[in-house]
Amino acid sequence: MRTALTELLGVEHPIVGFNRSPAVVAAVTNAGGFGVLAASVYGAEELDAQLTWIEEQTGGKPYGVDLLVPEKFVPGDPADLVASMRAQIPEEHLQFVRGLLEKYGIPPAPTVDHQHVAASLTTPGAVALLDVAFKHRISLIASALGAPPPELVARAKAQGVVTAALVGQARHAERQIAAGVDVLVAQGTEAGGHTGTIATMVLTPEIVDIAGDRPVLAAGGIADGRQMAAALALGAAGVWCGSVWLSSAEDVAVAAIKNKFLAASSADTLRSPTRTGKPARQLRTAWHDEWDAPGSPKPLPLPLQPMLVDDAWQRIDAAAEAGHEGALKLESFFVGQVVGSFRDIRPAGEITRQMAADCEQRVRELAGRLS
Amino acid sequence: MRTALTELLGVEHPIVGFNRSPAVVAAVTNAGGFGVLAASVYGAEELDAQLTWIEEQTGGKPYGVDLLVPEKFVPGDPADLVASMRAQIPEEHLQFVRGLLEKYGIPPAPTVDHQHVAASLTTPGAVALLDVAFKHRISLIASALGAPPPELVARAKAQGVVTAALVGQARHAERQIAAGVDVLVAQGTEAGGHTGTIATMVLTPEIVDIAGDRPVLAAGGIADGRQMAAALALGAAGVWCGSVWLSSAEDVAVAAIKNKFLAASSADTLRSPTRTGKPARQLRTAWHDEWDAPGSPKPLPLPLQPMLVDDAWQRIDAAAEAGHEGALKLESFFVGQVVGSFRDIRPAGEITRQMAADCEQRVRELAGRLS
Repeated sequence: MRTALTELLGVEHPIVGFNRSPAVVAAVTNAGGFGVLAASVYGAEELDAQLTWIEEQTGGKPYGVDLLVPEKFVPGDPADLVASMRAQIPEEHLQFVRGLLEKYGIPPAPTVDHQHVAASLTTPGAVALLDVAFKHRISLIASALGAPPPELVARAKAQGVVTAALVGQARHAERQIAAGVDVLVAQGTEAGGHTGTIATMVLTPEIVDIAGDRPVLAAGGIADGRQMAAALALGAAGVWCGSVWLSSAEDVAVAAIKNKFLAASSADTLRSPTRTGKPARQLRTAWHDEWDAPGSPKPLPLPLQPMLVDDAWQRIDAAAEAGHEGALKLESFFVGQVVGSFRDIRPAGEITRQMAADCEQRVRELAGRLS
Repeated sequence: MRTALTELLGVEHPIVGFNRSPAVVAAVTNAGGFGVLAASVYGAEELDAQLTWIEEQTGGKPYGVDLLVPEKFVPGDPADLVASMRAQIPEEHLQFVRGLLEKYGIPPAPTVDHQHVAASLTTPGAVALLDVAFKHRISLIASALGAPPPELVARAKAQGVVTAALVGQARHAERQIAAGVDVLVAQGTEAGGHTGTIATMVLTPEIVDIAGDRPVLAAGGIADGRQMAAALALGAAGVWCGSVWLSSAEDVAVAAIKNKFLAASSADTLRSPTRTGKPARQLRTAWHDEWDAPGSPKPLPLPLQPMLVDDAWQRIDAAAEAGHEGALKLESFFVGQVVGSFRDIRPAGEITRQMAADCEQRVRELAGRLS
């Protein structure tokens, strides 16, 4: 299909593949789609290595990056900010998480300190990430926290890099347009990760109507060619897919969670703030029952909640991967309602090509029904 | 568009117009769609009069009816059942509703006793409604409470009447198929009224994949031609629209609520059990804030909650229509997220024809983008 997105990015299929695994990003790009690295968990050095690897794999084909960049940079030392945030986590919450791990018998495990995620909220942290991103031949940069700061938009325009932003309501879109963003991603409530309450079917045409000439992508509920054709029918210039790649061979998620995804139905997700501090759709497991139980503390706001639970999740993932019964009960990850359609683990390139081919086939069938 | 639905029902457009106003049903049918009377609030005599009127208006064109028929008939006297149910409403709840009306200064008003709604849960009550429906030349009968009872399916098959049922999850669809239903309506979470949590974009293809040869209609999030084209792309044989007719001139809702709908955004609805006892999407107002406030009682189950609040809603509607400030704060009605797209009040026939024409136009545009 030819759309405003395929023309803007110079790709064959209007399919954006959003994933934290560089191998998925490269596979989607190599299959004629557009891979976007979900880079919010990476520090500057790691990001540099990942982008370099993607470029080696894709031989000049276009790709993009999605960073956790705050709307306004906070001056100050990243280490100081992290320390002051850690100090704000109440003892009640620390005890609750310790007690939860104990109750399910989760063994200790070596964990990685992700304090650079909170550090990226400061000017030096954010600038370091942007320096790495703009040093690479990215074609698109998306900002995951509200409207992008003017610094990001100015650098992108100067380098001819397209800016994109996810929106869950009309008023978000208006702020993004005011900030100068080029591409709006209308993300429906059925999507995995941080998402609002309005469904893709309603949100997409609503955003299209206020976006003017800007291409709008639909996100949420799109994992096959029928859903892609539906998104284009709604007026989208393409689809922004996240969850579907969790059923790809290249995705880095542990097998324990991939197996839970394969067994799940579309009714098995929920929007919960217990992982990041903001409502994010994920697989519903014993983890959520524990936080919902009477007497459990209320989740903290972002970024305190992820700082509180990050270590716990690394331990749960490791134990679940080793087949630990308690960890398998808790084990979860961000995923949209399309999880119910996962039947097998396939290469990301095959998913991309199949989705594009099925979408074209669907449009041909519909055209054949015109009176 | 020609689809399995247009062939099955002998209509021009695969658009079902579901509404409690006979005038909307007639207008949709006369415009080439298929009107379905939402008849769950009518007693047998009133239903008879409404169906007779629709038939006078539509000159032989097909239409259908949606009844509140329980999965299993409860033997016994309707009046006894109603009395025993009334006795189950706790004094705390009666006091809360009285206090709420007092707080907002809602004046008394003459109200209609809808006890026949609860009475229709008994064998004599349900049979009386079915007798009326099957005496008329209906082409389709939908049952609003779970799978239709065998009595209903047998009478429909004998008379060549199509049976339809709304489903919000795959397991509901399986029960409906086992009960012998002909048409499945996949109703997404964005829909108005009783609805589940899975979005139309995800639910529709999921139900299509298990429906076999049965036509599937998409419901929820469909109020224009783009959304209709999207529904067909998802594999639906047509659309089942409810909310959009609340913006039609023929709809019987009071102007007070229609004006609130015109001013609302897609973010202004919620799923709440405070009106019927089951989660139903409606416009969010002060009514919901009051029920959510600390110390408020939990809503009762269906059918106790509607028996509890029915009088109150008749008084609120009447006062809101007279411009009463407190009533306008509480005033609400069932509506889907598409409420954000309502721009003006139009004839239902015009809405039908426009949706069909825009859908065809959209499919033509998509076909022009094929590579």
